[in-house]
Amino acid sequence: MYSFKNDYSEGAHPRILNALIESNLEQDDGYGEDKYTLKAIELLKQRINSNNIDIHFFSGGTQTNLTAISAFLRPHEAVISANTGHVLVHETGAIEATGHKVISVEVKDGKLKPNDVKGALAAHTDEHMVKPKLVYISNPTEIGSIYTKSELEKLSNFCRENKLILFMDGARLGSALSSEENDMTLEDLGGLTDAFYIGGTKNGALLGEALVICKESLKEDFRFHMKQKGALLAKGRLIGIQFLELFSDNLYFDLAKHANKMADLLRKNISSMGYEFLVHSPSNQSFPILPNSIIEKLQEKYAFYLWSKIDENNSSVRLVTSWATKEEAVMEFIEDLKKLT
Amino acid sequence: MYSFKNDYSEGAHPRILNALIESNLEQDDGYGEDKYTLKAIELLKQRINSNNIDIHFFSGGTQTNLTAISAFLRPHEAVISANTGHVLVHETGAIEATGHKVISVEVKDGKLKPNDVKGALAAHTDEHMVKPKLVYISNPTEIGSIYTKSELEKLSNFCRENKLILFMDGARLGSALSSEENDMTLEDLGGLTDAFYIGGTKNGALLGEALVICKESLKEDFRFHMKQKGALLAKGRLIGIQFLELFSDNLYFDLAKHANKMADLLRKNISSMGYEFLVHSPSNQSFPILPNSIIEKLQEKYAFYLWSKIDENNSSVRLVTSWATKEEAVMEFIEDLKKLT
Amino acid sequence: MYSFKNDYSEGAHPRILNALIESNLEQDDGYGEDKYTLKAIELLKQRINSNNIDIHFFSGGTQTNLTAISAFLRPHEAVISANTGHVLVHETGAIEATGHKVISVEVKDGKLKPNDVKGALAAHTDEHMVKPKLVYISNPTEIGSIYTKSELEKLSNFCRENKLILFMDGARLGSALSSEENDMTLEDLGGLTDAFYIGGTKNGALLGEALVICKESLKEDFRFHMKQKGALLAKGRLIGIQFLELFSDNLYFDLAKHANKMADLLRKNISSMGYEFLVHSPSNQSFPILPNSIIEKLQEKYAFYLWSKIDENNSSVRLVTSWATKEEAVMEFIEDLKKLT
Amino acid sequence: MYSFKNDYSEGAHPRILNALIESNLEQDDGYGEDKYTLKAIELLKQRINSNNIDIHFFSGGTQTNLTAISAFLRPHEAVISANTGHVLVHETGAIEATGHKVISVEVKDGKLKPNDVKGALAAHTDEHMVKPKLVYISNPTEIGSIYTKSELEKLSNFCRENKLILFMDGARLGSALSSEENDMTLEDLGGLTDAFYIGGTKNGALLGEALVICKESLKEDFRFHMKQKGALLAKGRLIGIQFLELFSDNLYFDLAKHANKMADLLRKNISSMGYEFLVHSPSNQSFPILPNSIIEKLQEKYAFYLWSKIDENNSSVRLVTSWATKEEAVMEFIEDLKKLT
Repeated sequence: MYSFKNDYSEGAHPRILNALIESNLEQDDGYGEDKYTLKAIELLKQRINSNNIDIHFFSGGTQTNLTAISAFLRPHEAVISANTGHVLVHETGAIEATGHKVISVEVKDGKLKPNDVKGALAAHTDEHMVKPKLVYISNPTEIGSIYTKSELEKLSNFCRENKLILFMDGARLGSALSSEENDMTLEDLGGLTDAFYIGGTKNGALLGEALVICKESLKEDFRFHMKQKGALLAKGRLIGIQFLELFSDNLYFDLAKHANKMADLLRKNISSMGYEFLVHSPSNQSFPILPNSIIEKLQEKYAFYLWSKIDENNSSVRLVTSWATKEEAVMEFIEDLKKLT
Repeated sequence: MYSFKNDYSEGAHPRILNALIESNLEQDDGYGEDKYTLKAIELLKQRINSNNIDIHFFSGGTQTNLTAISAFLRPHEAVISANTGHVLVHETGAIEATGHKVISVEVKDGKLKPNDVKGALAAHTDEHMVKPKLVYISNPTEIGSIYTKSELEKLSNFCRENKLILFMDGARLGSALSSEENDMTLEDLGGLTDAFYIGGTKNGALLGEALVICKESLKEDFRFHMKQKGALLAKGRLIGIQFLELFSDNLYFDLAKHANKMADLLRKNISSMGYEFLVHSPSNQSFPILPNSIIEKLQEKYAFYLWSKIDENNSSVRLVTSWATKEEAVMEFIEDLKKLT
Repeated sequence: MYSFKNDYSEGAHPRILNALIESNLEQDDGYGEDKYTLKAIELLKQRINSNNIDIHFFSGGTQTNLTAISAFLRPHEAVISANTGHVLVHETGAIEATGHKVISVEVKDGKLKPNDVKGALAAHTDEHMVKPKLVYISNPTEIGSIYTKSELEKLSNFCRENKLILFMDGARLGSALSSEENDMTLEDLGGLTDAFYIGGTKNGALLGEALVICKESLKEDFRFHMKQKGALLAKGRLIGIQFLELFSDNLYFDLAKHANKMADLLRKNISSMGYEFLVHSPSNQSFPILPNSIIEKLQEKYAFYLWSKIDENNSSVRLVTSWATKEEAVMEFIEDLKKLT
Repeated sequence: MYSFKNDYSEGAHPRILNALIESNLEQDDGYGEDKYTLKAIELLKQRINSNNIDIHFFSGGTQTNLTAISAFLRPHEAVISANTGHVLVHETGAIEATGHKVISVEVKDGKLKPNDVKGALAAHTDEHMVKPKLVYISNPTEIGSIYTKSELEKLSNFCRENKLILFMDGARLGSALSSEENDMTLEDLGGLTDAFYIGGTKNGALLGEALVICKESLKEDFRFHMKQKGALLAKGRLIGIQFLELFSDNLYFDLAKHANKMADLLRKNISSMGYEFLVHSPSNQSFPILPNSIIEKLQEKYAFYLWSKIDENNSSVRLVTSWATKEEAVMEFIEDLKKLT
């Protein structure tokens, strides 16, 4: 059974394990104050081309989201999210558990535009309602679409005009920035968002996300919030070493490119068989619409998620590729699908 | 500069890294539902000799404490802790951030006895005060002392009679259970506490703590709480594999025994030079009282924490040993101290 | 300017002020343990015809909702509410501030049916999402509709089968139970809900809501939660005395009947002029759809809320009547509308 | 049985009930936007002699404390309180329930001095501990002592130098400012604290506290926090009218003076019989130390709280007087005590 269920099915890229082994017996400080973590931070600052940013490492996406958002907001302030937003449904109320409402805005492609946010603002008029304050977006979105630079600029401008915090969930950021349709860099994100994170777990690390805080007023005392939420690892070096390895050369983006390439291969071939897709996704997640009978056959040999019902006879499925996905496995899947078609 | 600052200065025991490498490219399920995690759970159940327990893995102690305690308590219920308790002061209000007061009880040796808890109960008489509900203890305590079986039995009985939840923080549990003065087993803890955790981070793992929930009513829906607090790692196998390795034979206790042996060596020799200790600690933390002038000299070559001021000329320091502490380093420290004495 | 803006524009019914004056200089216990409050509780138990209920008094609806809901739920559990639910939008995230998500379900008439709740349950399948646990309904709803006994029975059965808590917000309960279309009693509510509250503020009291807890497991330690949320008034008698007066004879329902009668008068006459209504509301709130030009004219003389835009030229408005609404004012409004029509 | 248990045993001063009756049938806006509330705010601003303050009305002290403190602090920030502080023990963890630790500082007379706060700051050194941010004091304190202007100036200066928020709980502020030993005015408090509240419930109102926010940065969006905590009363006029009456002339201070006078009478006479007091309290609470045998006799005729055990044979009791305390009752108590002595 080969799995296209997600991009965290395997361990870590071998270079990462090597880096851990090499540094293993050196003594160093705890809680992210070791030399590896400090170097990783410097490296990321160079990549983002800014010294006016703070960088903190987390062990997972939900933890990053809940710690950042609860640190950034006052008690009456709320999050605006697309209806597909990970924080809205798939984090077990983690944001609400820190006291904040998440306002859902219905969109088709997973992406928030200024008008969507405007509508949410207009619906919250006085102190009998929460005050929308933070705009949460994901890039790529939870359904694989990505923001263009122009789209992000418009949203960023709107947020600044309306004193809203723009926060980008980058659980799969490598895949977005490595997409053939992408026209943004890490540096652009540093300029256009107030905070974003660079996901490692889903792009070759054992675990780890790097939160980048761009807006000055959001930086103060941030490590207090991390400790309070249980996010300061005693052996913080574990994440620092991994990011150091991922960004010491182009490894991070090479891994993401491979994941995207495998996804493109899937999409191109599935498309050429005449199948449609639920949504246009130029990143490492693909959502083809297939007949239920074929899906059942495929499931005997491949693991993947059934995504949504299209009609009586057809459903969309989610196929995720990663740095570890083997081209042979993709080709075999395509051949099997061809035989079934 | 050799460090006796803590037991998380190095990476992981080499066998653990090996185990990660061996399993690295296998595909498996996420969020702790992989085969390694499931095996580790089975193994721990055997060690604790019980099938009526639930086991969950966390990435750190603060996260374990805050997730467990907030899951176990209703909003008006409070924690009772010794004044040395880690949750009281050293977790940045993590428990309070989930809504619960931590009541401090002054004790000398870091250990709570039934009478201490009784006093806290007596001081909380009605609905104008919080309702004390969970007794938080650490074994070993934050100052290195350990509970005897008889002490824990008395406390456990008192808690059951008073409908209190007994929770044991085992960040350094290996060291406690491997102490020469210890007379308890994991099985005893399964019978005497309502929940406890087995610390991995401070005993040779890269990261990881195993929470054991013994009391039936505390088990329900526990994974919801983990996800909500950001504690469900996507690659949950990372912790499962480590605990599997630590408990597949006696590695966990062998590592702790080494740490204790190094601590005993320190204490025996320091004691024989005529120095006193702040507290009797038969585990891997030692608190000798030394002249300030000697402390300053030692700090040129060794890293360790200054613990507390004793008088104008003397202070106690904290020396922590671990699975990775080298006997030569200990002997060198002793020789250096002898020269300074 | 006569106001139809809401049902809390005036002070209290004169009999209530009299009752306060008569008892004013007697000494009594604080925090709701005075003889008036105890008598009021006994009286309400008689009206609900049950001794197996607990009754607690609050100073307002939001406070009642947030205290009850946070006391009833564990951290990972969520509320299901109609999209019109007061807790969803109009309480400034009060429920989320206690840590719980409110799940919105789109309905047309403000009322939740078993199928609506079923859909919400089906969408929450595992520990990556919150666990829906409490069904929040309002009677009358926020748009004036009321539940029939048969509707409530079906919902109640569904909740019990699915281990859901059924909670009824009764901010305007007097109006619902006094509606010509109502077929329920307080006793019915005691049997069909797990908790509900009887609103005083909007039916003639200065302030005060009576929370009735029917389900045994929800009663424990409830006063702790009240105190923690700032809901235990030092002079708790202030509310006890008012409920004693409201329920010592039929005053509570007489006041509600008057409010409904005034609303019926409005609706009958507005309807006879050919206007439609946004929603069928047999309680003290009415939502006629009027031409914008007429609305503007009416606003010169009457205060009321613009409710929603219907099309370019028409909007719905909200007219609220109360125990204090004068028939002459209603008739004058009708005459003025007739002239403008 | 005459009660000296507290200062909220009776209803309201008759003038307050009259004011409610006079305005009762007028229509006005809800949620504290009515003309009475607006006038009361203007009046208080004149009394405090400042236009740069915001004033909000609450229904009780715990509600005021929890709403203000949670609005003022970020999640990692904590409160410093004397060990006698009301928020520390007697509000059922209301502050912790909003996420914040309350740090206890041991003092003898209920009053915090700069050095006490300094000690708490020194004990909280980094992000592994909460960040002390708000200094909570009560005037009079919970044991009846009051701050002098010089003491408050020193504390205020210290707080400003250390970027700490100084918050004064004024549940019994009338009594403090009317004490013979007082040398402060409302205007002084406006200049020296960042926020304080003027208690109405314990000084003749049915209910009501007026929170005064002096520091600009604490004012923003405050009504959102009130609504979220259930503190915005629909009939907000209920409190506005009372404060308008209390401050339209000198009623507020006249009532407090009477309470103090009754307390002075008690203290002078009890003292002249040779009894000691637990603490020097120049306000409306007195803590005489009496033989247990005499206390028992007195309890047959008078209600009051046993405060603390002094030795085998003696205890301190708490006697509270109020605006409603009758001089004859005080004299009778004194006579009875004389007979027993």
